[in-house]
Amino acid sequence: MSTQVSEKELLLKLRPFLEGQDSEGLVTELENYRPEDIAEIFWDIELDDAKFLIKVIEKQKAVEVIRSLDPELQERLFKGYEPKEIADDVVSYLDSDDSVDILNILPTRKAEQVLAFIYDQEYAKNLAAMLHYDDDIAGGLMAKELVQVKHNWTVSQCIEEIRTQAEEVDSVHAVYVVDERNILKGVVSLKDIVLAKAHTSVIEITKTEYIAVNAYATGEEVARLMTKYDLITIPVVDSMNRLIGRITIDDVVDFIKEEADKDFQLQAGLSESVESEDKVLILSRARLPWLMVGLIGGLGSSMLVSNFEGDISNLPKMAFFMPVVAAMGGNAGVQSSAIIVQGLANNTLKSKNILPKLGKEFTVAMINGLVCSALLLMFNLIIGHGYNLSMVVSIALITVIVFASLLGTITPLILERFKIDPALATGPFITTINDVIGLGVYFSLGRLLLGI
Amino acid sequence: MSTQVSEKELLLKLRPFLEGQDSEGLVTELENYRPEDIAEIFWDIELDDAKFLIKVIEKQKAVEVIRSLDPELQERLFKGYEPKEIADDVVSYLDSDDSVDILNILPTRKAEQVLAFIYDQEYAKNLAAMLHYDDDIAGGLMAKELVQVKHNWTVSQCIEEIRTQAEEVDSVHAVYVVDERNILKGVVSLKDIVLAKAHTSVIEITKTEYIAVNAYATGEEVARLMTKYDLITIPVVDSMNRLIGRITIDDVVDFIKEEADKDFQLQAGLSESVESEDKVLILSRARLPWLMVGLIGGLGSSMLVSNFEGDISNLPKMAFFMPVVAAMGGNAGVQSSAIIVQGLANNTLKSKNILPKLGKEFTVAMINGLVCSALLLMFNLIIGHGYNLSMVVSIALITVIVFASLLGTITPLILERFKIDPALATGPFITTINDVIGLGVYFSLGRLLLGI
Repeated sequence: MSTQVSEKELLLKLRPFLEGQDSEGLVTELENYRPEDIAEIFWDIELDDAKFLIKVIEKQKAVEVIRSLDPELQERLFKGYEPKEIADDVVSYLDSDDSVDILNILPTRKAEQVLAFIYDQEYAKNLAAMLHYDDDIAGGLMAKELVQVKHNWTVSQCIEEIRTQAEEVDSVHAVYVVDERNILKGVVSLKDIVLAKAHTSVIEITKTEYIAVNAYATGEEVARLMTKYDLITIPVVDSMNRLIGRITIDDVVDFIKEEADKDFQLQAGLSESVESEDKVLILSRARLPWLMVGLIGGLGSSMLVSNFEGDISNLPKMAFFMPVVAAMGGNAGVQSSAIIVQGLANNTLKSKNILPKLGKEFTVAMINGLVCSALLLMFNLIIGHGYNLSMVVSIALITVIVFASLLGTITPLILERFKIDPALATGPFITTINDVIGLGVYFSLGRLLLGI
Repeated sequence: MSTQVSEKELLLKLRPFLEGQDSEGLVTELENYRPEDIAEIFWDIELDDAKFLIKVIEKQKAVEVIRSLDPELQERLFKGYEPKEIADDVVSYLDSDDSVDILNILPTRKAEQVLAFIYDQEYAKNLAAMLHYDDDIAGGLMAKELVQVKHNWTVSQCIEEIRTQAEEVDSVHAVYVVDERNILKGVVSLKDIVLAKAHTSVIEITKTEYIAVNAYATGEEVARLMTKYDLITIPVVDSMNRLIGRITIDDVVDFIKEEADKDFQLQAGLSESVESEDKVLILSRARLPWLMVGLIGGLGSSMLVSNFEGDISNLPKMAFFMPVVAAMGGNAGVQSSAIIVQGLANNTLKSKNILPKLGKEFTVAMINGLVCSALLLMFNLIIGHGYNLSMVVSIALITVIVFASLLGTITPLILERFKIDPALATGPFITTINDVIGLGVYFSLGRLLLGI
């Protein structure tokens, strides 16, 4: 069992070797650690130290470290490398999918120079072909390294082929069976090859009911298929069903998280997926639409409140509690809709019966509303806001919490029915509506009960 | 390539056979579909039809359908089954991890009855042992079915063992090497077994630098290790490092999504992971804490606004724009913090330099703030709120947007440094603070510029 260390511990151990440029000591120390762990300390060391470290450790391990680096760090590192170095020392040692990831990070001109320096012409051609696919579709995610056998071969011929390709293909989970035109006929598990007799024809043990994806399928679609059918690898085919690559599950993990990430963004009022490293205008564009929704809602609120100008001028204290009523409606509404949205996303909420859900939601909202209203009432009475105003505020609060909770429950279900992403209902949209409604309820109650 | 259909299409095709109780037609039609697809229509058919369907199709496929059902549907289905039926027709056909999932769904008494009816005593004992683990830790996620070989065996003995266990173990990705006390010595890939000579000693091709997890490791920890080190399977050991099971990546996919789901919940102000199927009191308990935070913030707002009672009574129009100022601060703040939180979660934001981020955030906020303020100014001038008030509102708006964005950027970074989940900063917490600050800015500006 290999040692596992935290980033900090490892950094503390390596620092003296890096500072003393002690390559021997560094290599000995690093032998105990996995490339994935070594990669993590690159956030905290200088570029020169990073290059020194990569230079001294054993080539295959160095390449694994580079492969495990975050794209941002790879980009930074490669600025210090010549195209020929990248071709000879990095790309030649990697599987095609990892090489393509690296070429995608480099500036186009530099990537082309790297391709030109690759000694293995066939490999360079493959990489160039793969670069044509976007990095978020099956063609951009796949690796070319796979074991493929012809449908009229025997099992012993297959084993011979696995032996030939073993150097190139790190991990073999399945063997793909194709015909003479390279059309995918099926998949054989390695287990079945181990267990079959040597002279058996491979087609006899081939599973022809396989699932494949087109090179232009989205990463999300690949992730959906692989998780639904519990697949470890999936073959990638072109429009003629010719085998062109394979994707392993570890390459689509990011897309598995995608749905949850998307919900998070919608909830936060971001209209596209952005990173803090993105350009100012992209960041601005992702945020403006939902700010506009908030602005329009805010104007609605202001117009609504302006109807109660007289009441406010008679009893300015009414204004004190506008924020708490509006905010609590927003909070309660988002809580309700988030539960529904997550239920829809995880498929734990397929039953279409809305009424019992609403009944339950009503009960929960009543309990929480009562607790909050009671506390607020106590506070207001103690602070001396008078019985009437305090009662109005608390009644408004409970009404708003119940109403917002029910709206938060219904809205995502309705959106789902109209094929709109229900997560919309967890963001600025529902908060804004609840703001307007909450204030309307509050001031109407005030007029009714206080007679102002 | 097998047919893929939508839930609706399949339902339309099967409906006539179900209504006519046409078992022959149903079986013929279902041959074209995978168990995972068939499972999806169970949401929309009656319990009786579900039982009929399960009864008529081939046993192994029927079990696969049941395995693929959502837990809620499994629970509903099993209410109509006797313990002996579950033991004979379902559990005996499944791998131990899937069987344990099903036993966990049943009421305790019924689960015990099922165990008593299992014919294979060894299997029943294994299941009983596995039931002791929670279903979200390694011991609860693992399967007992694995190929293990002794460290002093030859490759041909290993192949013989794989042959013996092949019936029981569906998919073999790795072979685990143990000593006579069952202590895990290492892992051999199936590829290396295929390629090795028959008389080679297995220990020669064993990878002893493996990664294993303890049975009590959390599901999140298992997911983290498997994704970090790109593992397809991981062995599970007890505290003495004895091999007791293995987990495959498809069983931890839910935990891979966990982090993103958790952020979503925190953002929505839910203090624990809840489903709409949970009990009322659990739902209420998950929501109250953050409602309280909102309430306290709301009281803060009301106390703050009360300082400006005179200003409001002089110019009640000031109250009209309280909601828009407060809401826009909240929206802008959440947008900023969501980008940082997601960057931290996906490790794309490890660089610790805060200043450039703040500079960029300031620019984005200025652009968006200017756009929103200008629109609001136009609207207010047109509607006739007067130049002075309109200017105050727009200046307050831009100030609040900029301030909230900077706060939204800094807060998650600070929380992260203090080892607090940064996603806290995307929820009611930041909205509430921004409410209070926004209103303070607004009224102070009003007093300053309007001289009320």
